[in-house]
Formats: sequence, C-alpha cells, structure tokens
Amino acid sequence: MPSAAIDYARQNSSRFLDELKTLLRIPSISTLPEHNADVFGAATWLAEELKRIGMENVEVIKTAGHPLVYADWLHAAGKPTCLCYGHYDVQPPDPLGEWKSPPFEPVERDGNLYARGAVDDKGQMYMHLKALESLFQANGGKLPINVRVILEGEEEVGGEQIAKFVREKGDRLKANFALVSDTELFAPELPTLCVGLRGLVYTEIEARGAMTDLHSGIYGGAAPNPFIALAEIIAQLKDSSGRILIPGFYDAVKAPSEAELKAWRSLPFDEEHYRQTEVGSSRLTGEPGFSVLERTWARPTLDVHGMPGGFTGAGAKTVIPAKAVAKVSMRLVPDMDPTKIFEQYKHYVESLAPAGVSVEVRLIHSGEAIVIGTDNPYIQAATRALKQVWGKDTVFIRSGGSIPIVGDFERHLKVPSVMMGFGLPDDNLHAPNEKFHLANFYRGIDSIITFFEELGK
Amino acid sequence: MPSAAIDYARQNSSRFLDELKTLLRIPSISTLPEHNADVFGAATWLAEELKRIGMENVEVIKTAGHPLVYADWLHAAGKPTCLCYGHYDVQPPDPLGEWKSPPFEPVERDGNLYARGAVDDKGQMYMHLKALESLFQANGGKLPINVRVILEGEEEVGGEQIAKFVREKGDRLKANFALVSDTELFAPELPTLCVGLRGLVYTEIEARGAMTDLHSGIYGGAAPNPFIALAEIIAQLKDSSGRILIPGFYDAVKAPSEAELKAWRSLPFDEEHYRQTEVGSSRLTGEPGFSVLERTWARPTLDVHGMPGGFTGAGAKTVIPAKAVAKVSMRLVPDMDPTKIFEQYKHYVESLAPAGVSVEVRLIHSGEAIVIGTDNPYIQAATRALKQVWGKDTVFIRSGGSIPIVGDFERHLKVPSVMMGFGLPDDNLHAPNEKFHLANFYRGIDSIITFFEELGK
Repeated sequence: MPSAAIDYARQNSSRFLDELKTLLRIPSISTLPEHNADVFGAATWLAEELKRIGMENVEVIKTAGHPLVYADWLHAAGKPTCLCYGHYDVQPPDPLGEWKSPPFEPVERDGNLYARGAVDDKGQMYMHLKALESLFQANGGKLPINVRVILEGEEEVGGEQIAKFVREKGDRLKANFALVSDTELFAPELPTLCVGLRGLVYTEIEARGAMTDLHSGIYGGAAPNPFIALAEIIAQLKDSSGRILIPGFYDAVKAPSEAELKAWRSLPFDEEHYRQTEVGSSRLTGEPGFSVLERTWARPTLDVHGMPGGFTGAGAKTVIPAKAVAKVSMRLVPDMDPTKIFEQYKHYVESLAPAGVSVEVRLIHSGEAIVIGTDNPYIQAATRALKQVWGKDTVFIRSGGSIPIVGDFERHLKVPSVMMGFGLPDDNLHAPNEKFHLANFYRGIDSIITFFEELGK
Repeated sequence: MPSAAIDYARQNSSRFLDELKTLLRIPSISTLPEHNADVFGAATWLAEELKRIGMENVEVIKTAGHPLVYADWLHAAGKPTCLCYGHYDVQPPDPLGEWKSPPFEPVERDGNLYARGAVDDKGQMYMHLKALESLFQANGGKLPINVRVILEGEEEVGGEQIAKFVREKGDRLKANFALVSDTELFAPELPTLCVGLRGLVYTEIEARGAMTDLHSGIYGGAAPNPFIALAEIIAQLKDSSGRILIPGFYDAVKAPSEAELKAWRSLPFDEEHYRQTEVGSSRLTGEPGFSVLERTWARPTLDVHGMPGGFTGAGAKTVIPAKAVAKVSMRLVPDMDPTKIFEQYKHYVESLAPAGVSVEVRLIHSGEAIVIGTDNPYIQAATRALKQVWGKDTVFIRSGGSIPIVGDFERHLKVPSVMMGFGLPDDNLHAPNEKFHLANFYRGIDSIITFFEELGK
C-alpha cells in the first residue's frame, strides 16, 4: 500500500516532468566560460525551487568558480540526517551533429526523455527535490528525517569548489550519510547500489617543436612534428594488450575481495551482448586475464580524449604545427594515490619526448577511488526500500566512473555515501542523445521517498 | 639604363601596391565552402584587371570546382609564347589568434606587406599582371612576346580543375614555356630559379572503435580508443631517426646528381642558423646522413597536420570518441609514383590497425615530383634577366614544396616551367603573419619585364 507521499508524487508526475524540462533547457555547461551565466541561472532556479517546496536556509553560495546551492530542514529530532548531493552542470554537447534532437530542447521519445543532463545529473538530482516535496506535502510540511541539500555546478570539471567547501566548512554539512544519485541500475528493473568508484587523473600533454607553424613542403624533413611526437609518446603509454607501461603504475592497486568477485560473476552480464549493444566495436580491448566488469570497475585504465592543434577543418592544409596537445586521463582504483600517479606519469611522458620536441604535462584535475562497506545501516535501509519499490533484492556494483565528492564526504565529513542511481547503461551520458528512462525517473522518486520513510521509522 | 616599362612600373608602384591590397582583402580560402563566393569574387576581380591592362579573350572559365581565369595577347609574330600561371586562392588563416594583424586586412610593417596570400600566391601572381601592364603601356599597347595567362582558384586544395583543363583543353594553353612565380629566393638579394619540386600524397586516416561516443569512466578498459589506435599507427610510420617504414617506400627514389649536390653545398646555408632563425626547435629532425637541403629538397618525408575528433575544447571531457582522424601527407621526390606510394601506404596503415579498431585510408590529393633541366633557353634567358636586375648570378635550387601544375604542364603541354619566385624563407607561407617583402614585389616586377624583353629581342 503506497504511502501518501508516493500518492502525491504519482498525482503530480506530469508537472514534475515539466519542471525537469525547464531545468534541462538551461545549457549549464561548466567547462565553457561562455556558459557561466547559464550555470549561475541553473543554480538560482534550483534555489527558488528548494524554497518553494519547503526547505529552509536556502542559499546560493558564491565561490571562486561556479556557485553551490545549499538548503536544509532539520526538525526531525532524534532522526538521522541525510546530505542530499547532486550536480546541476552538464558536459558539452558536442559532437552536435549526432544529436537526433537539440541537446537543450528536451523531447520525449519511446518512454525516454532526451536532453543533455537528462540523467547526468539534472534528472537524478531532481528526483531528490521531488521526493522531498512529496514528503513535505504528505506530512503537513514535515520530513521523516533531517535533510541537508548541497548542489554543485562544476562536477564535470573536477568539483574544486565543493571539495574546498567540504574541507573548510564541513560543519555546515554535518550528516549521518550522503545520498548521491549519479550512477545507474546494473540492468533494467534491477535495483542497484553502487559501492565503489574509480578515481581520475585528467591531464594535457602539450608538445612543441618549431617556434611557429611551418609549411610541410618547405620544412618537411627538418622540422619536428609535434603530432608525431605525441603519437610516439601515446604509443608507449600502453602495450598492445592494453597494459599501462608507466613505471610503478600498478604498484598500489588493491584487488577486489573474493566475495566481491564472486558476486560480480553472478550478475546478469554477457560480454558479447555488451560488446554488440553497448560498445559496438568489432572487439573489446583491455588487459588480458580480467573480465569486462573487473577491467571497468577494478582495474586502472588510460584513455585519450582529443588532440587539439594543427589543421582540423575539411580538406587539406599542409602545415607542420608549432604545437599540439593530447588530452589524456587515467582511471584509478583503490589504493592508488592520484598525486603519486600523476608524478609517475609526468616523469615517464617527459622521458619519452623525442629529439627536437619539448613536452609540458599539465594536471587538469584528479580524485581518489573509493569503496564503501555494504554493512552500514544506511546501505541496509536503502536495500529494504528498494525491495519494497522494485520487488527485488539489490545488487551491489562498482562504477568505472569517478564521483570525487564521495571521497571528500568520507575523508572530511566522515560520512558514507549511499549511491542510489537510476540511470541505464545505454543512457548515453557524456555522449550525443543522452536520455533518462522516464519510468526510472518516477520509480526513483518512489525509492527515495520510501528510503527516507524507512529511516524515519 | 632601365627600360621604359621599368620606368612605368616604378612611377606606378604605389598604385600597384594599393591594387594588390584590394585583392588581398578578398578571403578566397579555397578549402572552406563558406568562402566559395570569395573565391569567385577574386576570379572576377582579376578578369576585370586583365581586361583593363590590355589582355584579350579574357574569360572566367566555370568548372566543377573553383573557376579558372584565362586571357591572352598573341600578336608578337615570330616570338615565343609564355604561359603565365598563378593561383588566387589562399590557405585558411588559422590559428587566427597568432596573427599580429587580421589576415585579410593587409598592413605594411618594416618594409613588408602582411596578409594571407601576400606571397602565396596573390602577391607573386600580381607581379605578372603588373609587368604586363608596364610592357603594354611602354610599348604602345604591345608586348615583346606572346602571352597567355591562366589563373586557378584551388591550388591549395590540389588543383583538380586546372589539371583537368590542361589534360582536356591543352590546345588553349599552347606555349613554349610557363612562368610560375610561387617559389622563393634562396636568400635575400640572391636571384634564384627553382628547378625541382617534391610531389605530394595528402591523406586522411579515419579510425573507428565504438559505435558512439562513450564515457571513459564507464567504458575505459573495454572500449577501443581510436586516438590510441592512430597514435600506434603513426608511431609505426617512421622510426626514431625519421626514416619512413612503409615497405617499398624508398624503392624508386632517384638521388640528385653529383653536380647538383656540389652546387647545393656551395649555397650560403648554415644549418644551425636555419635551426635557430627559421625553425626555432631545440633540434632539427630527419634522416641521418643527409644535409637539411637534401632532406627538404631531395628526400621524401611524412608529416601529420592535425587529428580532428573527440574533445578539443578547453578543460576536460571524459569521452572515448567513436572515431578520430589523422591528416597525414607525404612529400615525394623523383621518380616516386604517387598512385603506387598511396597504395603502399594504405596497405601498410591498414595492416597496423589494432584489434577492435577499423581504419579507412582516404586519398585527398596527390601530385608527382618534378625536376627541370637548366639548359633550356627560357631558363637561360631568365638567368640573363635576373643578372641585369639583381647584379648577381642566379642560383638553382629545388623546393620541398609541391606545385603539381608544373608536372601537368610538362606532361600534357610538353612545356618546361621557369619557376622564378621572389618570396623569402621567413615569409610565413601557410602560417600566421604571412608577408611579402615589398622590395621583392617591386624587383620581381622589374625582373619579369626584363625577362620578357630579353625573350623579345
């Protein structure tokens, strides 16, 4: 028998969706300075919404970067306090040409909502707000537990400001646990809690040869080519099997427990199906001797994201560019130290610079990997709530992605995170045609309502 | 004692320069479709100018690409016929931020004219027109020799249309020799004829991994990365000494004669000075055992010009792109066959594709290398004219660049080319801050006048 709060959520589902669309129309791309005003606009919009639903002490907190949005409701004496976290910034939408509908004009198709940020993370963050609204409305303006909300606007560019806030003003975020909805269901209809995240070291390698761009006819054979230098460097970062060649890179890697590995093997996962339906390449890559789940959850990796410089237009330009850049990141697992890994990487890359080319290795941002124990009471309450709403036992997974704030919450606030996400593996996050399955949006709201009611018992 | 035509050129030099500036303000970038109208505008502007100075049968010849401009004056019975060639299209100006003044707003600084196309090739092509105008004006509307003019608008993108015209309508271009001013002086004040050009094979390698862009956190360790694949391929195209590893690549290479090599060794050229002032890298690169002049004039090379794809903006985007492209070209020397080289290259590149990545190798354009004998009467007359104007003996050089039309003239029209160019090694062609030294613009006009007068004797 659904609670009054769940009834309210169901009766208001179409308005909830309209509101989410309004939020998705704001192109709050945190990495592009020309969208700074949009990022700020999304923050103020959310602050207004938090006030409207009944949250108190609502504040748009200015920072040296994009603002934070804070709110609380702390009148459930004797009950636990949840810190609801989410981010309202999004990834750039490029390549624009591959979107079937414009990224900032949300459209429903086949039971999905398509827009940049639909699932990562505006849609999932908005589930928290709508769960809170429903609980307020169904309980005479009260919540079953204490709640603080903290939203950030630069998760996609490293989350520097919230990390600083957590470090320096942690007392404003005191809680018993954090709720983070920025992950996915392992499979449709399968309630899932994420209990592990990889860390990240995101870098740029800039190679410089000649002092100016040169004509490749006149100077080819004498002037160093920074793209060829980068190619030589990148080709030496991994061997042909996918093993990373940075000296010392694997030294601190902590393997998952036997129990975890056993549970992963029992998950409904078929590597061939995954290859065909999610990746679509002729073969999967990665270190031999590890399953796909191990490779993407529990092994470190290295990828190249783009190589700006030179001539990238259509047709031909015969230039030897003076400089070229490679954007390279590494995903880390427990217990790799991002600072140490960056130093090892930098030292190795510098040692690979060919004659005539100088390289500069820059750290863009980084964060540690994290693993959360499944025995804490908040994870336990979450599994009970998910069982009620979804009728199934929760599976515990890790994610290959990085949510550095989860590490900051653990380190500085000493609170564990409940990563209760409702995305799907094919939701195209960070890619064209990002979507959120609408049934999951609604069932996610139900799940959070039930979780908070469970904790308020 | 200067001729009347040279007197006329000197009296009108400031107007000549103003006219050139007008031409340089037209952004006739042949590789960018959005500038098609500008390319056409430059063609019609030149046709009007050819009519004005006294040329006959002026025509803007429409083609499947950018237009050709034709004109002639054929009333010097018994005298030779010169085919004046030039191109009115230019390279893209990017990177725009590195120009000290806007590329299409010509500005004089320190005796130089700065603009995209100043030297390559609008400024040099315009010397022909101004030499012809001066000869008409000083000789009662007559020229000392017969002249045909053919100008093209797609030299920077491969010159397909003029090549087709030469092949199919060669009778309209009948001449004894061609005059091409698209090369440079070996050193300031040193009259120079270019008698060798490298060929070119310009390609794109497209690597495809996953079927869509993927999040590098979620898929890193399983999805193939097309940039890493391209890096691995490119790193195997050359060894660390700069030798190209494509099987069979060097098989047909014809070395320069001992006499040529001896003449090159006597040229005023200091590799260390060249490294410091022209290239500016910490070391020069290229095959060991060959001098810089041999490496850039008489040895084939391979360069990468840009690697479009993925994320190239500022900041961080954690994407594994579905595809990435490398723009790769090779410079060829006599007697390498572009078609055969492309096939060898394509086959080799395809063989290097790593597991999970498919590659497509596309030919963008190509042209053969060429060497012209110094004993023909037009080269001989040119050296006499240059001696008169510059007071020095001409040096014969090659260029590492490619002017495919010179090969077409030789093959299809059976005419040798006199490559009499007046650029300087530091004129930044194809690069930001392209310039033309104004003294060379004026002295180039004098040289062409004198050359034609010499042939009309």
